[in-house]
Amino acid sequence: MLQKDLRILSVQGVKRLPYYLKFLKELQEEGTLFVPAAAIAESLGIYEVQVRKDLAAVSSKPGKPRVGFSVSGLITDIEHFLGYDCANMAALVGVGHLGNALMSYSGFADYGLDIAAAFDASPELVGQRIHGREVYAMDRLAEICQQKKIPIGIITTPAEYAQQVCDQLVAAGIRAIWNFAHVHLHVPEGVLVQNEDMAVSFALLSNRLAQAMRGEDVEDDPS
Amino acid sequence: MLQKDLRILSVQGVKRLPYYLKFLKELQEEGTLFVPAAAIAESLGIYEVQVRKDLAAVSSKPGKPRVGFSVSGLITDIEHFLGYDCANMAALVGVGHLGNALMSYSGFADYGLDIAAAFDASPELVGQRIHGREVYAMDRLAEICQQKKIPIGIITTPAEYAQQVCDQLVAAGIRAIWNFAHVHLHVPEGVLVQNEDMAVSFALLSNRLAQAMRGEDVEDDPS
Repeated sequence: MLQKDLRILSVQGVKRLPYYLKFLKELQEEGTLFVPAAAIAESLGIYEVQVRKDLAAVSSKPGKPRVGFSVSGLITDIEHFLGYDCANMAALVGVGHLGNALMSYSGFADYGLDIAAAFDASPELVGQRIHGREVYAMDRLAEICQQKKIPIGIITTPAEYAQQVCDQLVAAGIRAIWNFAHVHLHVPEGVLVQNEDMAVSFALLSNRLAQAMRGEDVEDDPS
Repeated sequence: MLQKDLRILSVQGVKRLPYYLKFLKELQEEGTLFVPAAAIAESLGIYEVQVRKDLAAVSSKPGKPRVGFSVSGLITDIEHFLGYDCANMAALVGVGHLGNALMSYSGFADYGLDIAAAFDASPELVGQRIHGREVYAMDRLAEICQQKKIPIGIITTPAEYAQQVCDQLVAAGIRAIWNFAHVHLHVPEGVLVQNEDMAVSFALLSNRLAQAMRGEDVEDDPS
């Protein structure tokens, strides 16, 4: 029963987990051992009942009366639920501004993401070190992904190259694609795609703002 | 009744609209006047019934038998639904890698977003031109946002400065915040926030990949 419950957290719930994790890690650094659900709720501006529901889906250990949840226990359970303890290695393709931004984001290490290799088609970039990582030529993609057993491909190329890069990543054995290009990718069954499209995100914001400007009710961040 | 229908498109539906728009604009450039729902569905790998449902929520003009929908009519209706025809001006704060990536993204113009001013606290950046736009000092934020009547603030600063920048944007009359910092922002009622958090997005991907690795069924891109 509990195993089954592990899977029923909504997408919105999964998206709240990194915020819980951030707050819990801050508490851990301060030496706090237990935290009541109400304190988590207050820090993030969420209803306590929502926090309790999310945590029940993720953790098998109920909070203790008066003291609350074990901080380290929750951190372990959330990290396990999110698969962060699997040390997710990624290959990034396209070292432009966005690729640079992702490579420079120190926060990923806290979330189990390790950009283990970067690739670019530009001869000026190949061989350079960017944020401590060497940039490889595209013709080394398959070799390096297979050798390091990298499961995740990150596409930060211009849209017109994204499908071709996606095909190369899939051929190199990648299991999941994090796609930042504004294009619909075709992948074989069994390969996960998650689109991270700034144009799509802006569409949501623009739609909500237009609603608000017309005086309609707009719900909280639905993204 | 139709006015009411305009609001019932799901978040997932709103997120599909930019892809429809991209495909329709490609057709328009080729000189195509009408498109059947089936052709839109096929190009994006979506069920035709879903396309029909989405378009019915956005457009009051039904498709014609045999020829399909008017390409230019659908473009107008989708752009209106998304508020792109309101020319959404934005002020971007934090001209690091991510700020640079957003400022260099030429696709935004197609989606009605105009990054009208950029701000940074670093004296080395102030006064420079980046992707054709001048970077202003933070103490000019209120003046420029009010003068240009900018409704959207984009926060691409480090997390520790995000709340302070958010407060300044709100004080300058901004109506919506697009927040790329990994922090929960507190805003007064009536100000929209949309979080665009790479750590949160990665959490979703990591969770889905962990499920897939355990051999569980994983649903299509839920983001």
